[in-house]
Amino acid sequence: MPKWVPIEGNLATPAGFLGAAVAAGIKKAKGALDLALIFSEAPGTTAAGVFTTNRVAAAPVVLSRQNLRASGGRARAVIVNSGNANACTGRAGLRASQETARAAAKVLGVSRCEVLVASTGVIGVPLKLELVLNQIPSLRQKLSVENASHVTRAIMTTDTFPKAYVLRARIDGKSVTLAGIAKGAGMIHPRMATLLSFITTDAAVPPALLDEMLSAAVAPSFNCVTVDGDTSTNDTVIVLASGRTGVSIRPGSKAADAFLAGLTELCHALARMIARDGEGAKKLVTIEVRGARTAADADRVARAIANSPLVKTAVAGSDPNWGRIICAAGYSGADFDPTKVDIRVNRLYLCRHGLDAAFDEAIAKRELDQKEITLRLDLHQGKAAARIWTCDLTHDYITINASYRT
Amino acid sequence: MPKWVPIEGNLATPAGFLGAAVAAGIKKAKGALDLALIFSEAPGTTAAGVFTTNRVAAAPVVLSRQNLRASGGRARAVIVNSGNANACTGRAGLRASQETARAAAKVLGVSRCEVLVASTGVIGVPLKLELVLNQIPSLRQKLSVENASHVTRAIMTTDTFPKAYVLRARIDGKSVTLAGIAKGAGMIHPRMATLLSFITTDAAVPPALLDEMLSAAVAPSFNCVTVDGDTSTNDTVIVLASGRTGVSIRPGSKAADAFLAGLTELCHALARMIARDGEGAKKLVTIEVRGARTAADADRVARAIANSPLVKTAVAGSDPNWGRIICAAGYSGADFDPTKVDIRVNRLYLCRHGLDAAFDEAIAKRELDQKEITLRLDLHQGKAAARIWTCDLTHDYITINASYRT
Repeated sequence: MPKWVPIEGNLATPAGFLGAAVAAGIKKAKGALDLALIFSEAPGTTAAGVFTTNRVAAAPVVLSRQNLRASGGRARAVIVNSGNANACTGRAGLRASQETARAAAKVLGVSRCEVLVASTGVIGVPLKLELVLNQIPSLRQKLSVENASHVTRAIMTTDTFPKAYVLRARIDGKSVTLAGIAKGAGMIHPRMATLLSFITTDAAVPPALLDEMLSAAVAPSFNCVTVDGDTSTNDTVIVLASGRTGVSIRPGSKAADAFLAGLTELCHALARMIARDGEGAKKLVTIEVRGARTAADADRVARAIANSPLVKTAVAGSDPNWGRIICAAGYSGADFDPTKVDIRVNRLYLCRHGLDAAFDEAIAKRELDQKEITLRLDLHQGKAAARIWTCDLTHDYITINASYRT
Repeated sequence: MPKWVPIEGNLATPAGFLGAAVAAGIKKAKGALDLALIFSEAPGTTAAGVFTTNRVAAAPVVLSRQNLRASGGRARAVIVNSGNANACTGRAGLRASQETARAAAKVLGVSRCEVLVASTGVIGVPLKLELVLNQIPSLRQKLSVENASHVTRAIMTTDTFPKAYVLRARIDGKSVTLAGIAKGAGMIHPRMATLLSFITTDAAVPPALLDEMLSAAVAPSFNCVTVDGDTSTNDTVIVLASGRTGVSIRPGSKAADAFLAGLTELCHALARMIARDGEGAKKLVTIEVRGARTAADADRVARAIANSPLVKTAVAGSDPNWGRIICAAGYSGADFDPTKVDIRVNRLYLCRHGLDAAFDEAIAKRELDQKEITLRLDLHQGKAAARIWTCDLTHDYITINASYRT
């Protein structure tokens, strides 16, 4: 299996891609980047997307799903805005997404259904279409490899740092690059793709295979992150494969295994960045459950702990309150014997056989004061395991969300 | 149907009951009441209990369940401590509950299995049994109608006000009284009884009927409250019926209908107090969903909204962010058409047919600034409805829970 190595770069590091971003005035902050374009110069570019499972899906989600179906898994461009989710905006909202795609398709000289659209921001506020349309020629003009770096910033909302990751490996004797960006922060919950993530690669991947591999990569990565248990209306992960390296990824091949490994690693890296940058978060918390009877039980326990506000506030306060952890496991619906449970923070036992492990409070506090914490549960019931990423719950989450809209 | 009228009183207002509380030194705060006894002088007193569904159940929950089974639904006393949950304390913890019941039974001259035990406080810390045993003679001595008022305070942890409610009605020509107390604050979530609640009545109710009616009363009241989505290890609701009025409640009778109506009204009143006094809460929030296709759908939507930290922080900030409300409905799993949804805060429409209702921001803020807020959703899909109580999510929740244990 080839080794994927992280390198410096952006979405245009894989051959065939260009990017650009502008300040269109959609965000309140004057001059803030809020509209971006990702473009593939390769006519045969394949594409796949994973979208929110929320019944209330935003207009760009509805349109991108339609376009991927209509094009048979091909796309040349993604146009994305922040500052407005274009969700719960009715027929006018859908028209805004359609007009955006149409205008971008025109200046780029591609088919309308080869343009995907994404939005993130406040729900229920009409998107001012003219702000978008006015900027499309300028976006076209600015497209370059260097300007692709600005796309990462243009999709941020309450994110505190831009999230990008680039991997390179040799497959079939040639260099293949995978690049991804993401934005997260709030309204982040499993059973979805996360808010927005865009991935490019210069391998050639048939649409059906790309689709299958994206789902496989998203399941253990983006779908294992939670910030606040709220599944957004706008979740979107899109991958574009330009094929410019000449490396063809065929189903069942070693190259496919290698590509999937890289895609999963990329999604993992972005997903962890999203957990680390949860709204108000100071700590990245990994929940590792093992010894469960079934994979479903392991998953239930890990998610219940990751979603417990009591566990997350205790982590914020570096309080080794393992009682809240076992309590969350207890109401998760999983089948286990409480008197067999071991709980550790990093390597330190807080609870053994369901009882207090008589740990040193000062040492426990030091472990919990770290910026990356792993809470490990061993249920001692079987061999199944699960891993979920989340963050602590702090005052800043409340501050950010008490007046997000107003 | 007789009318139940709220009156002043305590758990000993129904005929046959006495109560007392002492400071046993279990709570850290010196002199704080933390151990209480509720006693029925009537030998035939029937009892029913509803307990946590958490797989990790505290020792007093295990013992009280056992005792209710062993006694065939009879009990003469409840002994309850705050400051320590006696959960995840192993065999020593179970022995502590057993010894507590045994000692109380001895001084009261009743059978051991007629004493129920309850605890609330930190999980996983051994309960110092001698602190309890030392105080049992003194508790016995202090038993009186007046001292029953202290029980309400003795069960409080992070509660900011004592929660008690007393109702009286005439049934079969005689006065029947129902009294209840409760404590709540954190680790409060549906699918359970809430943390602790004790109810007394002087009607005579056969055990099986009392059990059935308690479950019926708890379902739309305590089980419709959520503070933080965390189901506790210690949830307990116990009702004791002394029969001292001579009013007999028989299955299928009009008196049974009347009694159930009173019991449900009492549970509702206590449940609302718990939501209002959620940890850090400044506002009581009622979620009313109607027009759902099924009762299960209505319930899913109401609970998803009530558990959404984004909705709860927006309410804290008086931000009419209805997009978060419809978003939570969307991921609840309920079946509905987003373009038909209406959302109101109190009487003010924020969203009509899934779109912004062009409301006045200043008026919306004024509605949300109230201490009691109702969020109303009409899904326009059918006739089913649901109602859930919760509270806003504020900085104080974080402050209280970041260092609860340490």
